[in-house]
Amino acid sequence: MSRIVRVAAGQLGPISRNHTREQTVKRMIDLMRAAHDRGAQFIVFPELALTTFFPRWYMEDQAEIDRNFEREMPNADTQPLFDEAVRLGMGFYLGYAELTEEDGETRHYNTAILVGPDGKIIGKYRKVHLPGSEELRPALKWQQLEKRYFDYGNLGFPVFKGLGGILGMAICNDRRWPETFRVMGLQGVELVMIGYNSAAHDPNGGEESSELRAFHSNLAAQAGAYQNSTWVVSVAKAGVEDGAGLIGSSVIVNPNGQIVAQADSTEDELLIHDCDLDLCAHGKDNMFNFANHRRIQYYDRITSQVGVEPPE
Amino acid sequence: MSRIVRVAAGQLGPISRNHTREQTVKRMIDLMRAAHDRGAQFIVFPELALTTFFPRWYMEDQAEIDRNFEREMPNADTQPLFDEAVRLGMGFYLGYAELTEEDGETRHYNTAILVGPDGKIIGKYRKVHLPGSEELRPALKWQQLEKRYFDYGNLGFPVFKGLGGILGMAICNDRRWPETFRVMGLQGVELVMIGYNSAAHDPNGGEESSELRAFHSNLAAQAGAYQNSTWVVSVAKAGVEDGAGLIGSSVIVNPNGQIVAQADSTEDELLIHDCDLDLCAHGKDNMFNFANHRRIQYYDRITSQVGVEPPE
Repeated sequence: MSRIVRVAAGQLGPISRNHTREQTVKRMIDLMRAAHDRGAQFIVFPELALTTFFPRWYMEDQAEIDRNFEREMPNADTQPLFDEAVRLGMGFYLGYAELTEEDGETRHYNTAILVGPDGKIIGKYRKVHLPGSEELRPALKWQQLEKRYFDYGNLGFPVFKGLGGILGMAICNDRRWPETFRVMGLQGVELVMIGYNSAAHDPNGGEESSELRAFHSNLAAQAGAYQNSTWVVSVAKAGVEDGAGLIGSSVIVNPNGQIVAQADSTEDELLIHDCDLDLCAHGKDNMFNFANHRRIQYYDRITSQVGVEPPE
Repeated sequence: MSRIVRVAAGQLGPISRNHTREQTVKRMIDLMRAAHDRGAQFIVFPELALTTFFPRWYMEDQAEIDRNFEREMPNADTQPLFDEAVRLGMGFYLGYAELTEEDGETRHYNTAILVGPDGKIIGKYRKVHLPGSEELRPALKWQQLEKRYFDYGNLGFPVFKGLGGILGMAICNDRRWPETFRVMGLQGVELVMIGYNSAAHDPNGGEESSELRAFHSNLAAQAGAYQNSTWVVSVAKAGVEDGAGLIGSSVIVNPNGQIVAQADSTEDELLIHDCDLDLCAHGKDNMFNFANHRRIQYYDRITSQVGVEPPE
């Protein structure tokens, strides 16, 4: 048996804060067309794919912050991407900053959507694991202020039927947390899409090199794939953006945790792979047959305790 | 700051069912002495280190099964190992099959103990994630009958103070489950010791090669280390044992998930590394600062559901 889906990873090079959304959407349309020319049915774009990675700067002016957010999706800037997807019959994953009203309150989310080949939004995910700090850390040249600019995602880790299988989404830092993959694995996920903007420097003032941070990025995607018997498509915004480096290393990972395609640039770059969703079955039926092997009575701490409780 | 512990991985080559415990303990004593000569304070031996990996055979005679189990620890066969440890001032991790009485019932566990340099048992762990099947699978040349011969471990995933830090134990298949590492990570673990016997063939009749299975073994150890900012010492029983292949690939992994020492044989082999427990702090204080970043309200499925519940 085989259920082959030809999937593209649409890595983006840097997006300066001087770039317009129109320019950026044009680059995504170019990647989408190139992916379609190579037979891809679906393309995964990065996290916050419409703007520079603005949480690297400390800002107090809410209007300045909000210029990085979308109030509707699609909107006038992104409609051409949706239109092109419909024309080509391509689905896509898009990360963006979402500004919305909930119960009379303004909310800011780091969001990803899954769009079908008919241009309809099949699913939405809002980033649960916001990294960084709420407050300025003066010792750091580059900030990581996602906790300041975003509300925590409030949709959990839903999965969606699509591409003949079960699809899930995560965003950037989520991939470092095995809980992210496991909650989707427990819903039978077969392909997890992840967009990211990961700094090439240590965001916490330590000594992590760009190479080590790319290794961490790959390791997290590979372990999530293997331990949940799922494909993973993990896609970077890469390169030197407004003076700050971002790792590339976009990868497509099979359900054995093996990298089957990997970016070799930090520019706009396409990876294409035929992902056979039926390759998930051997792991799901055997080594990671959760019903047979999980022992939840010993996992209590994972959901009953947030931080570390060391032994006395 | 640094809290350096010189740790040894004591990989064992095959142990035939014709070998006596006396012969096997002698090999472990040789490894322990060699490790001590190189300044190691602690040595990690494999899972079921006193016998062949007997769950590969289908047996019905309980007396035949029970010959692989220890009724006391230490006992006459293993006392020389404990004595040598005291003489050298070395601690060790030892995996063995434990036969015991609990509430008037005979129990069989796949067990590991942590022994201090004074020869006292500091901690015990009983394997939670028993792989394989309870019943004979006639299509398979080699069985994996741990679910038949062992009771599920009933001690959870405890950690213990030792070597100036916080120590944890797991056994073989446990390492493939991120829950294992996370429950210990939530107790601040800084060094996880794992012994294993992993078949070089696909234990579920699939096409996994020995190389792929060694990759899986490493990947699980590396992800567990990185995602919990802990050292991992993962030690094989290796080589062709009574006709059945076992992967080697014993590794010592740092809290960045990087392999810092790796076996290059499938024989008795020593790996030595100076593990600085303070290298755990950067991850535990920042990227994996659990108190700051975990969002347990979205992890419910991990403890409320055993098997997969696919979307409707």
